[in-house]
Amino acid sequence: MSGRTPLRLAMVGGGPGSFIGPVHRMAAELDGRIRLTAGVFSRDPEKNAQAADGWGVPRDRVYPDHHTMIEAERARGDGVDLVAVVTPNHLHFDVAAAALRGGLHVMSDKPATLNLGQARDLADIVAASGKLYGLTYTYTGYPMVREAREIVARGDLGPVRKVVVEYSQGWLSRPLEREGNKQADWRADPAQSGVGGCIGDIGVHAFNIAEFITGSRVERLCADVATVVPGRNLDDDCNVLLRFEGGARGVLIASQISAGARNGLKISVYGEKGGLTWSHERHTELTLDWLDGPSQVLHAGSAYLGAGAHAATRLPTGHPEGFIEAFANLYRDFADAIQGRDGGLVPDIGEGVRGMAFVERAVAASLADAGWVALEGEGR
Amino acid sequence: MSGRTPLRLAMVGGGPGSFIGPVHRMAAELDGRIRLTAGVFSRDPEKNAQAADGWGVPRDRVYPDHHTMIEAERARGDGVDLVAVVTPNHLHFDVAAAALRGGLHVMSDKPATLNLGQARDLADIVAASGKLYGLTYTYTGYPMVREAREIVARGDLGPVRKVVVEYSQGWLSRPLEREGNKQADWRADPAQSGVGGCIGDIGVHAFNIAEFITGSRVERLCADVATVVPGRNLDDDCNVLLRFEGGARGVLIASQISAGARNGLKISVYGEKGGLTWSHERHTELTLDWLDGPSQVLHAGSAYLGAGAHAATRLPTGHPEGFIEAFANLYRDFADAIQGRDGGLVPDIGEGVRGMAFVERAVAASLADAGWVALEGEGR
Amino acid sequence: MSGRTPLRLAMVGGGPGSFIGPVHRMAAELDGRIRLTAGVFSRDPEKNAQAADGWGVPRDRVYPDHHTMIEAERARGDGVDLVAVVTPNHLHFDVAAAALRGGLHVMSDKPATLNLGQARDLADIVAASGKLYGLTYTYTGYPMVREAREIVARGDLGPVRKVVVEYSQGWLSRPLEREGNKQADWRADPAQSGVGGCIGDIGVHAFNIAEFITGSRVERLCADVATVVPGRNLDDDCNVLLRFEGGARGVLIASQISAGARNGLKISVYGEKGGLTWSHERHTELTLDWLDGPSQVLHAGSAYLGAGAHAATRLPTGHPEGFIEAFANLYRDFADAIQGRDGGLVPDIGEGVRGMAFVERAVAASLADAGWVALEGEGR
Amino acid sequence: MSGRTPLRLAMVGGGPGSFIGPVHRMAAELDGRIRLTAGVFSRDPEKNAQAADGWGVPRDRVYPDHHTMIEAERARGDGVDLVAVVTPNHLHFDVAAAALRGGLHVMSDKPATLNLGQARDLADIVAASGKLYGLTYTYTGYPMVREAREIVARGDLGPVRKVVVEYSQGWLSRPLEREGNKQADWRADPAQSGVGGCIGDIGVHAFNIAEFITGSRVERLCADVATVVPGRNLDDDCNVLLRFEGGARGVLIASQISAGARNGLKISVYGEKGGLTWSHERHTELTLDWLDGPSQVLHAGSAYLGAGAHAATRLPTGHPEGFIEAFANLYRDFADAIQGRDGGLVPDIGEGVRGMAFVERAVAASLADAGWVALEGEGR
Repeated sequence: MSGRTPLRLAMVGGGPGSFIGPVHRMAAELDGRIRLTAGVFSRDPEKNAQAADGWGVPRDRVYPDHHTMIEAERARGDGVDLVAVVTPNHLHFDVAAAALRGGLHVMSDKPATLNLGQARDLADIVAASGKLYGLTYTYTGYPMVREAREIVARGDLGPVRKVVVEYSQGWLSRPLEREGNKQADWRADPAQSGVGGCIGDIGVHAFNIAEFITGSRVERLCADVATVVPGRNLDDDCNVLLRFEGGARGVLIASQISAGARNGLKISVYGEKGGLTWSHERHTELTLDWLDGPSQVLHAGSAYLGAGAHAATRLPTGHPEGFIEAFANLYRDFADAIQGRDGGLVPDIGEGVRGMAFVERAVAASLADAGWVALEGEGR
Repeated sequence: MSGRTPLRLAMVGGGPGSFIGPVHRMAAELDGRIRLTAGVFSRDPEKNAQAADGWGVPRDRVYPDHHTMIEAERARGDGVDLVAVVTPNHLHFDVAAAALRGGLHVMSDKPATLNLGQARDLADIVAASGKLYGLTYTYTGYPMVREAREIVARGDLGPVRKVVVEYSQGWLSRPLEREGNKQADWRADPAQSGVGGCIGDIGVHAFNIAEFITGSRVERLCADVATVVPGRNLDDDCNVLLRFEGGARGVLIASQISAGARNGLKISVYGEKGGLTWSHERHTELTLDWLDGPSQVLHAGSAYLGAGAHAATRLPTGHPEGFIEAFANLYRDFADAIQGRDGGLVPDIGEGVRGMAFVERAVAASLADAGWVALEGEGR
Repeated sequence: MSGRTPLRLAMVGGGPGSFIGPVHRMAAELDGRIRLTAGVFSRDPEKNAQAADGWGVPRDRVYPDHHTMIEAERARGDGVDLVAVVTPNHLHFDVAAAALRGGLHVMSDKPATLNLGQARDLADIVAASGKLYGLTYTYTGYPMVREAREIVARGDLGPVRKVVVEYSQGWLSRPLEREGNKQADWRADPAQSGVGGCIGDIGVHAFNIAEFITGSRVERLCADVATVVPGRNLDDDCNVLLRFEGGARGVLIASQISAGARNGLKISVYGEKGGLTWSHERHTELTLDWLDGPSQVLHAGSAYLGAGAHAATRLPTGHPEGFIEAFANLYRDFADAIQGRDGGLVPDIGEGVRGMAFVERAVAASLADAGWVALEGEGR
Repeated sequence: MSGRTPLRLAMVGGGPGSFIGPVHRMAAELDGRIRLTAGVFSRDPEKNAQAADGWGVPRDRVYPDHHTMIEAERARGDGVDLVAVVTPNHLHFDVAAAALRGGLHVMSDKPATLNLGQARDLADIVAASGKLYGLTYTYTGYPMVREAREIVARGDLGPVRKVVVEYSQGWLSRPLEREGNKQADWRADPAQSGVGGCIGDIGVHAFNIAEFITGSRVERLCADVATVVPGRNLDDDCNVLLRFEGGARGVLIASQISAGARNGLKISVYGEKGGLTWSHERHTELTLDWLDGPSQVLHAGSAYLGAGAHAATRLPTGHPEGFIEAFANLYRDFADAIQGRDGGLVPDIGEGVRGMAFVERAVAASLADAGWVALEGEGR
């Protein structure tokens, strides 16, 4: 056919009951660049088959485990090009490492791995593999987040002085992990999630978007990572003071016990001349407030936006895209990168390592009541 | 395989340069229920092939015209099940009629046809065909619009007294149709659009959503349909007073010369006990204001919503879906209907006829300065 | 003392149970430019005295009726300078005329009079008196409304093409006038209110602000003025299509049966290059949407605003003023005008006449089902 | 006359160039309960007289200093009842102490004093004086803030778990104190402001409103108090982690270098069952988000609100009051308290002491990099 034959995707995890599995499937296929072709959707054979059927994956490309899959797909002339890792956290490393070693590109759900050690090992594996590794920090896929990054990079706000990022949810206000909720279950289990609960689940998104938009790295932090719901095994509320390279100050708030909050990721970045605010609840807008002039509201899909926002938009202004489309932007960029085009903005294993370092340092420092600590050594 | 084998879709129109073609493609395929399999995407053979390649449609199922396509697909064992009509308005009738007569279901972009006479004829053809006909009044696919309909139907607001619906755009503030803009070009051409410009393009959406949410029919109207941009061949601004069966009053505002407006569809419905407001710019929310209590804001994806809103949502609350997903809800409902499940909410040819009646009556009455007129005879 | 001795104000009406009386008192005195010194607050002697005591008006300047008051105050060396008319509508003319003829300036609540004939007569009386007459169309006192007027006048939006103004309340959704509500009582009584109910009470505000901001006059209208609550003696819902001099189209919506609506005055004005929107619920903001650039939000109290907005603001940006302060701006402007300074923006009897013409024409045309009619003869 | 003769107020400070002086004057007089009668408005005799004339204060009650004033007013039969202290911070103690000792009630602008030691001394003086002392933590005067306090106290949200309070301004992004700005000048001078810059100017408001709404005391804090603008002598950005009695966690953000921010005080309080959010930019609204139901928006002036909100509102819903009216509520409550009625909600010297303890502890702990410290000893 043509050079634009869709890439073939295998998925590991994401079967019936998963929230993020279907999102990966819809996002990957949205633009016709990638086709879900094979997978290990569940360890339960029946559920595995059920997922395959629902998504049009032929039964002969549904596998009992990822090792079998990687071997079988390598053996085919039309084997898959990339693997999406959508299992609970503790399996991320194994699946990603196996796929990379098997010559496949990897798109992984966040966080990259169960812990920082694994993340560093994975970085080595990626480097050695010659394959691409992408990480779905979803929020970096939103057009107005990319516009925000361009605005800061261009210096419109002047040097950044302050960052306030908040990601508040309320759904874990009750001990759902003891009430049979599958989503809550693995998230509250250190064996599957790692040392971070809320901080690993959503705190890393807040951390990542702060670094993404400012283009600046967090150097030090002072963390209050807490377990509010009695009996819970991991944290569910985190408040962290930040210091960026260059001196900017920051506050990061992440919570899953802010009862009534839905999925409220919000960030404000203040420079010498003005500030910007982006909120997931109004994700098609980006507000700029200036020291010396009227506020501005930029709208997704508008002609006046920069190249990054344009490339991340499918529809004219006023026609809202959303979470799936933001996710799809990451997949589209990843397809571009695989096919040798300039993709650019897919978070990579370096950002994965930083995220894991943030989680581990914040949890440890809070536990030790250590005050300010460096987010050091994360790049080895 | 299983009973959930995807339905096979052919598309007519929607090739390179189209806004709505890609939306139909993404929406149809989003949930894995339908697969784009064949098509006539453009009269230009090169563009036709280009669209097919980009969307993974095999070259042997790309056709030069819809008659050829319908014949060829009928002859196959694995021929398409339904046809999406995404051409300019003047071709809607021909394609839809041919497909229905060829034994295929039809999903058509709005308005149903070029004029009311065609719409009535098409209603007869649908009835005679035994096939299903759906119309993409997109906004009825939004979960909170469906929730609004349920709230009114349940009587929460009491009997409806007043409706204010506004759909304001600004993009035709300049004579883009004379500046080489393809989207503006056919919309401002009576031969391709029919007698309605703005009123046919977006006024019908406002009309449809008002009847959809209230569950009540407009009986009379008093219209001011105007051409504001000098030299334009069709209207670009319409203001219409409405009277619903049962006596409720209404105001419908539609404009494409409201400079600075993006795609601002908004509706308020007031009953005896309270009012509801839905705005496309905040489409995941539905606001209820009460005579005797605090206002309420309902959020898409919440557990407390009704069945219709639930069925139209893929993600948990706080994870915004958008225009493509609303569109996809119509396709999913249509797939359900085709496969004998209870789909229910896809607008049908009856609503197509009403829309065309609204356009023709409003344009004629305004031209004649006729004051209040009946929206009569629309069902024959 | 100094040249800035406060002006002395007498009030007629506004005693216990009045909503607007206390507002006039607070507004007049807010800036120390005017002091309430005398009055006829109620026909009930006890209530009259009670109001006086509460507001620090000496008992010897509380009068049984306005004729007595005017005569007595004229006889004093320190008699009042101006009279505030805050009675129900049917008394506006008498009090205002008597005060003007008695050599006093008049600040009247709206509407100017009970009917158009009275308004025209009052215009003659004002002209003959050599005294000043102001009308409290409150919304013209808001700083961002004045900014809006400047923006249009300066041509920033280009020629105005469309105006949408809506003033929705819900508090008369029930027949409160039959439930002992004093505010509802006189408003629903034609003998006290005139021929307009909702249209006279709030429709005139919408009409006035549309003309105020656009600086353009309504020439023709097509009205649907209705009584929705059974048994009510005056209209409670009005929808009016407008045509301005110069050709701009408009829609005016006013309702007191939009259940759940609070006091939602909102106006959008669209020109060739962009549009502005002001809403009473966000009265410190003015939104500008542009055909070719980011939206802007202007905030009251900001340095970048024009002279009119500045003069109407007491506090730095972010410190909200409100309804009383908007009202106070009219009084402050009126004090300036009385004291020979450049006041400028107090609505005058000319605007009072236009308001009455609007009410009478709309009510009559709607009753006669007359379609489009001229708002003619209003200046005689 | 009657028992409602206005109380007589003297003001110290607040002359030409002051922001807060005129606010105190307007607020005190708004409801006719208090009349400005005497004062020391400026040390400059000309400005002193100018302020008096503008506000209708007779020249014979304008004094060169507060000691002279207190003595002279005590000697009169109609001497003042209370003194408003609106000087820069370093004079608060002297004026308040002298007035209390002179038998006068005191209403002081915040913070109570220059430092914690003075605040504790002043508490003793208040106790010994038998007079009333009020502190204008303005934001506690807003009706929806009082509603919020009632909602938490009633237990609607369940036990409080988390508080996020942010007060961001941007106006000190530049070194205005070196550019002749009077407002910036004294605020950046430790001799006039005390050890806290931003934290003393606005951080205390955030601290106070958090304790006010939750009805719960901050026990520990971990502070990052910074000077961002080079050369500034006091802090201009503060981020503080909080721990409340009972275990709730909190984050307090205060900044005057958040460029583009106007006066953005905002607070969210999360309990086990839901959360509330109040923002000064939308001060007439209070949003409640629930774990298990639709969000609610409460509007000032509505019948369904509690007694505290009602008492703090003058106008029907939809007629916005603002900053001056919130301030006036404190004065009205104070007048009630003086006149022996149940006033109740005026912040007192105890809250003044807590505010000063917060400022001093946060500044000291941040300087010492001390991590978590107790906010101890504040009650002695």
